[in-house]
Amino acid sequence: MTTLAVDCMGGDHGPRVTLAACRRFLDSHADARLLLVGLPEALKDFSHARASVVPASEVVGMDDPIEVALRRKKQSSMRIAIEQVHSGAAQAAVSAGNTGALMAIARYVLKTLDGIDRPAIASQLPNDKGGATTVLDLGANVDCSAEHLLQFAVMGSALVAALGGAAQPTVGLLNIGEEAIKGSEVIKRAGELLRAAGAAGTINFYGNVEGNDIFKGTADIVVCDGFVGNVALKASEGVASMIVGGLKQEFKRNLFTKLAALIAYPVLAALMKRMDYRRYNGAALLGLRGLVFKSHGSADELAFELALARAYDAARNNLLDRVRTRIDSAAPLLSADTAERSTATAQ
Amino acid sequence: MTTLAVDCMGGDHGPRVTLAACRRFLDSHADARLLLVGLPEALKDFSHARASVVPASEVVGMDDPIEVALRRKKQSSMRIAIEQVHSGAAQAAVSAGNTGALMAIARYVLKTLDGIDRPAIASQLPNDKGGATTVLDLGANVDCSAEHLLQFAVMGSALVAALGGAAQPTVGLLNIGEEAIKGSEVIKRAGELLRAAGAAGTINFYGNVEGNDIFKGTADIVVCDGFVGNVALKASEGVASMIVGGLKQEFKRNLFTKLAALIAYPVLAALMKRMDYRRYNGAALLGLRGLVFKSHGSADELAFELALARAYDAARNNLLDRVRTRIDSAAPLLSADTAERSTATAQ
Repeated sequence: MTTLAVDCMGGDHGPRVTLAACRRFLDSHADARLLLVGLPEALKDFSHARASVVPASEVVGMDDPIEVALRRKKQSSMRIAIEQVHSGAAQAAVSAGNTGALMAIARYVLKTLDGIDRPAIASQLPNDKGGATTVLDLGANVDCSAEHLLQFAVMGSALVAALGGAAQPTVGLLNIGEEAIKGSEVIKRAGELLRAAGAAGTINFYGNVEGNDIFKGTADIVVCDGFVGNVALKASEGVASMIVGGLKQEFKRNLFTKLAALIAYPVLAALMKRMDYRRYNGAALLGLRGLVFKSHGSADELAFELALARAYDAARNNLLDRVRTRIDSAAPLLSADTAERSTATAQ
Repeated sequence: MTTLAVDCMGGDHGPRVTLAACRRFLDSHADARLLLVGLPEALKDFSHARASVVPASEVVGMDDPIEVALRRKKQSSMRIAIEQVHSGAAQAAVSAGNTGALMAIARYVLKTLDGIDRPAIASQLPNDKGGATTVLDLGANVDCSAEHLLQFAVMGSALVAALGGAAQPTVGLLNIGEEAIKGSEVIKRAGELLRAAGAAGTINFYGNVEGNDIFKGTADIVVCDGFVGNVALKASEGVASMIVGGLKQEFKRNLFTKLAALIAYPVLAALMKRMDYRRYNGAALLGLRGLVFKSHGSADELAFELALARAYDAARNNLLDRVRTRIDSAAPLLSADTAERSTATAQ
């Protein structure tokens, strides 16, 4: 039996969507149990043999500052969901609430794993090969050291393996050219560390990749700092929405184009389905002493259900132990590196 | 009369494309003169009343290391084209050659303007509003200070005004959230500087923008460091090519979808035309004591012609003087800032 704690109040739509998604998820996962966390009034109409309500008296708003969410709303559904993981009542928590608040509360309640300086947010983006590329960090850390990027590579590898991808997924370092001499000092140093980790068998290092490689699927995992990852993600969303918007506009231009739209519709719908962001919903907060998954705030039933399924798979496949084991095996590299740098500083 | 020096040997296709583009450009610009720089043998069949050949004995290859291009190929067509600008024989140079080599040679031959620490590469990207957003830097500088970002904002404003855009174009600072408290220390400090420049009337500062705003057209200009700009650009190209590739695949699936493609073709072609990267060809190397424009290496006739037209407009509209004037007006901010920081360091 795998138990998930669900923050039913989060997201743009709240219980209307989260509860409907919970029902679909329970129906398709006979081995799952859900702890539904939220205002009792909002959850009172839901009943299922494998679901129970955990009451909360507050809700973190999408615009609440992190400080408010963390210090003033100690009875929020988001916090209580994460506390279920901390107490061991659930193996993973899922929320569609405010990302900054979720990361801050998760970090405060669960703490980071030994060997991890900073948790990261990992998400999947569709690629040309019909699969998905896992990218991290997507916004939790604006300035990262080379060691942080190695930690991201190690955690991302554990995530992909736990979610049914390659056992030794390839890792690309996001850079502005394929050659090892490209990039900032931090990136060059990260390249050295990742190469060493590759040689030691800790990760399967592919080498440098560029922005377009995320969507080509050149490597299974792409690591970058959270600033760059966030900009790349949002720029990509911007292009996609410009193209889709442009298609709609062109097809609406006149009677002929409207007719063409009717005929082309099934083809366009097939394409949209392939690239549907909902299929990739459910970002992992990695590096914590417990599993937390973040759904898109605008998620609909299907998307939220898929985030639940992702958290369920991660919990069932022991993602937490996998991350721990991999981080332990990378420890010599991380500490050798620290020692070497102290020496360099001392000289 | 405006004279451009054209590196006819650069790009993936060399003289076959560049010379054809030069002829089209001369035919549509009665007031333009071209200096065609290249191997005499390759240019011997071209003749036009307003074009003359400037011989070069070497060619910078697309894969030549910067050192080779700069130190060993002193008679390259790329270098001689830039020297035409330095000597005053031409008002701008255009090349489709290797970007790194072009920037290095341009910087070496022309030097940077007073008040500019680092030249930047500025390009236009199509946006939802049917226009284009000017983004800089796109790869020349991997680590930038807040002062560099202010210089980019000032130079970008001069470029947009010279190329016929708004006289006081809006400038957005690329960040991971709209709030002023977001981002790294450099970005926060850049935000303060840009706000001060906005208050002083040196630029028209919009505020922070995110990756998707590039394609929404939220601000006329988006400034960022070259690492982030390059990743955003390539990630965007990756998404666009994934969507276009997906469309082609779906339309080829079976007889029905092939028929649908025939009917939808004019609509899709109209969309492709709107988003045609060739329309935005011709990136400006800004901050040098002379105008240099870079064409995409894969440019065809139309694209290279548009890069020539862009360089011509910039020269005719005195882009160089505009950049100088604006940098002078920003000088108090840049130096006040330096003074303030020296004081801070001294304390």
